[in-house]
Amino acid sequence: MAGNSLLLATVSLLSAFQQSYFALQVGKTRLKCKIAAPAVTGSLEFERIFRAQQNSLEAYPVFIITLWMAGWYFNQVFATCLGLAYLYARHKYFWGYAEAADKRIFGFRLSMGILTLLGVLAGLGIANGLLDEYLDFHVAKKLRRTF
Amino acid sequence: MAGNSLLLATVSLLSAFQQSYFALQVGKTRLKCKIAAPAVTGSLEFERIFRAQQNSLEAYPVFIITLWMAGWYFNQVFATCLGLAYLYARHKYFWGYAEAADKRIFGFRLSMGILTLLGVLAGLGIANGLLDEYLDFHVAKKLRRTF
Amino acid sequence: MAGNSLLLATVSLLSAFQQSYFALQVGKTRLKCKIAAPAVTGSLEFERIFRAQQNSLEAYPVFIITLWMAGWYFNQVFATCLGLAYLYARHKYFWGYAEAADKRIFGFRLSMGILTLLGVLAGLGIANGLLDEYLDFHVAKKLRRTF
Repeated sequence: MAGNSLLLATVSLLSAFQQSYFALQVGKTRLKCKIAAPAVTGSLEFERIFRAQQNSLEAYPVFIITLWMAGWYFNQVFATCLGLAYLYARHKYFWGYAEAADKRIFGFRLSMGILTLLGVLAGLGIANGLLDEYLDFHVAKKLRRTF
Repeated sequence: MAGNSLLLATVSLLSAFQQSYFALQVGKTRLKCKIAAPAVTGSLEFERIFRAQQNSLEAYPVFIITLWMAGWYFNQVFATCLGLAYLYARHKYFWGYAEAADKRIFGFRLSMGILTLLGVLAGLGIANGLLDEYLDFHVAKKLRRTF
Repeated sequence: MAGNSLLLATVSLLSAFQQSYFALQVGKTRLKCKIAAPAVTGSLEFERIFRAQQNSLEAYPVFIITLWMAGWYFNQVFATCLGLAYLYARHKYFWGYAEAADKRIFGFRLSMGILTLLGVLAGLGIANGLLDEYLDFHVAKKLRRTF
C-alpha cells in the first residue's frame, strides 16, 4: 500500500512545505515587530500570526492521520482532493488571521469541515476493513458496485 | 504491512478524534471565559484546559510513532491495547487538569508509563528487525516460541 | 515498503526519544525555577528552554514526513543519515537555546538546512514516482545508472 501512496505523499510533502512557510512568516513578523526570542507576546500583529501558525500546527497531525487513513482505506484520489482543499483552507485561515482575528473564521470553518469529511471517510474505510477482516462481512464488494 | 495495519489505523483515528475533541473543549472554554483570540491567558480555568490540550498535543507525535513502530515491528494487538489504554489515560489527564492542576498527575503518569512501554516494545521490535536484516541473527524465531 | 523501512523506523524512534527527553528537561526546569503549572512565563531560563522544546516540537511533524517520504521515494540510507544529522542539530539547538537565546542560531540553521535537504530529496523522489506512474516517463532508470 505504501508503494502506491504517491498522491498522499505529494499532499503530505506540500503540507510540510506549507507548515514551514507559516513558521517562516512567524519568524519574519518576529523581526518586524521587534519581539526578541523567547517572548511570544507584546505585539497584537505578532500574536495573531503566531496563533494562526500554532493553530495550523495543532491540527496538523490530525490532518496527516485522517488524510493517510482515508487514502489507504477509503480512496486515494478522494483523499488527495480533500487534502489539497485543506491546504487552500489553511492558506485562507492563516492570512485571514494575520489581517484580523475576525477574518480567520471562514478559513477555519472550511478547514474543519474538510477535516471532518476526511475523518468520516477514514472511519468508513476502516470500519469496512474491520468488518471484512474480522467478521468476514464484505461491505466493500457491495459498495464498489455503487461507486 | 500497511495493508495489515487496520487495528493501528483504528486507534490512530480514534486518537485523532480525541485530539479534535480536546481542541473543541478549549474553544468552548475560550468562549465561556470570554478570552478573545489571540490571547491565551487571563483566566486560570482557560489556562488549565489550554495547557492540558497543549500537553496532549505535544505528546501526540511521539504516541503515533511509538504506536505504529510497536505495531509494525513488535505486535499489532499488543500495541493496539496499549494505544487504547493511552487514550483512556489522556482522557483522565485532560479532565483532571481541567478541574485542578494537581488532578492532572494520575493521568499524566499513566500516559507516560504507557508511552514508555510502547517505546520499549518498538525498540525491541526494531532491534530484532535490524539484527535479523543486517547481522542475520534471528532473535525473532527464538522468541516466537516463547510468546 | 513499510516492511523494509527499518532504518527509518530506527531514526523515528530515536527522534521520539529525543522529543521526550526535551519535554522531560522542560519539566525539570519548571520545578527548578518554581514555575507552577499552568503558567509558562515568569523565569527567563524556563522560557528559553520551553521555547526551545516548543520549536523542536513544531518542526517535528515536518521532519517525520520529509524523512519518510525521502526514505520511501528517494533512498532510505541517505534519508537515515540526514535524519541522524538532524537529531544532532536539534541537540545543539536545544542546549544552545537553554544557555542563551543567541546560542540557538547555529543548531537552528543546521537543522533547517537538513530539513530543506530532506524536503528536496523527498520532492525529487516523489516527482520521479509521479512521472513514472502517471506519465510513464522513467527518470529513475536513467538516474539509477548514475547513483
